Amino acid sequence: MTRSRTPNILTLFCIFFFLISVSSTHPMPRKKPYNPCKTLVLYFHDVIYNGQNAGNATSAIVGAPQWGNYTILASQFHFGNVVVFDDPITLDNNFHSKPVGRAQGMYMYDTKNTYTAWLGFSFVLNSTDSQGSINFIGADPLMNKTRDISVVGGTGDFFMHRGVATVMTDAFEGEVYFRLRVDIKFYECW
Amino acid sequence: MTRSRTPNILTLFCIFFFLISVSSTHPMPRKKPYNPCKTLVLYFHDVIYNGQNAGNATSAIVGAPQWGNYTILASQFHFGNVVVFDDPITLDNNFHSKPVGRAQGMYMYDTKNTYTAWLGFSFVLNSTDSQGSINFIGADPLMNKTRDISVVGGTGDFFMHRGVATVMTDAFEGEVYFRLRVDIKFYECW
Amino acid sequence: MTRSRTPNILTLFCIFFFLISVSSTHPMPRKKPYNPCKTLVLYFHDVIYNGQNAGNATSAIVGAPQWGNYTILASQFHFGNVVVFDDPITLDNNFHSKPVGRAQGMYMYDTKNTYTAWLGFSFVLNSTDSQGSINFIGADPLMNKTRDISVVGGTGDFFMHRGVATVMTDAFEGEVYFRLRVDIKFYECW
Repeated sequence: MTRSRTPNILTLFCIFFFLISVSSTHPMPRKKPYNPCKTLVLYFHDVIYNGQNAGNATSAIVGAPQWGNYTILASQFHFGNVVVFDDPITLDNNFHSKPVGRAQGMYMYDTKNTYTAWLGFSFVLNSTDSQGSINFIGADPLMNKTRDISVVGGTGDFFMHRGVATVMTDAFEGEVYFRLRVDIKFYECW
Repeated sequence: MTRSRTPNILTLFCIFFFLISVSSTHPMPRKKPYNPCKTLVLYFHDVIYNGQNAGNATSAIVGAPQWGNYTILASQFHFGNVVVFDDPITLDNNFHSKPVGRAQGMYMYDTKNTYTAWLGFSFVLNSTDSQGSINFIGADPLMNKTRDISVVGGTGDFFMHRGVATVMTDAFEGEVYFRLRVDIKFYECW
Repeated sequence: MTRSRTPNILTLFCIFFFLISVSSTHPMPRKKPYNPCKTLVLYFHDVIYNGQNAGNATSAIVGAPQWGNYTILASQFHFGNVVVFDDPITLDNNFHSKPVGRAQGMYMYDTKNTYTAWLGFSFVLNSTDSQGSINFIGADPLMNKTRDISVVGGTGDFFMHRGVATVMTDAFEGEVYFRLRVDIKFYECW
């Protein structure tokens, strides 16, 4: 009797591991984990050139609609303004903290009846903690408390990373200064 | 005789599953499936500001070459024109259908001897069916019937999605209105 | 004695393959291979319109800060200049070699105290070797010998590809012509 059991167990093994091997050789859209493999919280600070702050300005209006100009953000919720920036990145919300890198790229205000922008920029990090760049694009509906954009790639310490970044307006002063908090969650880390 | 077979079968198992375990611990560039895990067909509608249609316009020229201006697309196939837009997205090709979201971002005409554009934009969807954003970039050779661009990321219902979108000019009227059909195929869905 | 060994071996199998199956059903951020699955080395050539080279120019200034204009790159390291381009791509460093495609998109100078740019563009390849597009974004600190940007997607032969591209300034003449060498390494190939 005992003898005859052995083949049966082997048969079960066959079926069991056949199923495993099928599932791994025939790839399916696999449900990936939703826990970030790495996170970062950073702040960046934007001072728009207004014709009088050349020394401090970190950004400038470089595109405007027909009704705009290059030292004052346009009427109609700044619709059509394109701004190029090179903003300091800090670990806390203090403009005067030692920068850990630069946020470089552009945003463009793209709606006539509320404040929204489209962002395309990179974080270029250069500190003892992180060396490399993180590349972002996405829509930024400014009136929402939090806005999610995509981390579409990275280099250096962030080689091939992807993820989602949550952007929050941490402070603003008139139409010249604003500070954004960015919570970066990487879900592909390599 | 029967007795001695058992070890042989076990040996075969060993070899078989050793191979499986090797292949899964030593990751190879695995051939992913080419069937989309999700698809969407959407239309968006662009009305360029021409100096006289402020009420209806959904986009505006915000960059132009030296020979251009901001109410008429430039000569030489509009080379150098940058347009910022906030266009309604609809489920069918009717401009007056209830929008399910907004297409926001920019396109720039980038060739002197034919119509081509470079696109960077987001679909911000806000309907009972879909909540979230989809981010696109890519080249758009307008004279081709279909053009493929990249879906480089997404948020909300489209968290971390990637794919390819096929863009088709569905209609245009002079140089003020055009409608694009976008067939989105996601190949990474999470 | 021999008889009783068989169950023990089976028990070991159970434990061994149970561990394998656990590791494959509970996905972890898996360490992907760092060997590219495909590589390309290409050159592209940019001739900026300066008011006198309309015939040869492949790019044009389309955005400028308040202190700039559209035929001369601005002072302060060209900060704020936005350039749209349609540049020939060649297999070697010869401007007159037969192009294998076009580099189309834009760059914007984004720093006041050194040369840096932000890039958003596509390679549209159309040769016997390659048909399809490759989409790039990233920061370009021009004074570094090599700069890494992200390959965020592709179409055609480069369907869904991702990777990293290393950009090098191969030559430049005054402020009108430059040539970039781009070493593309794809790490996701599909």
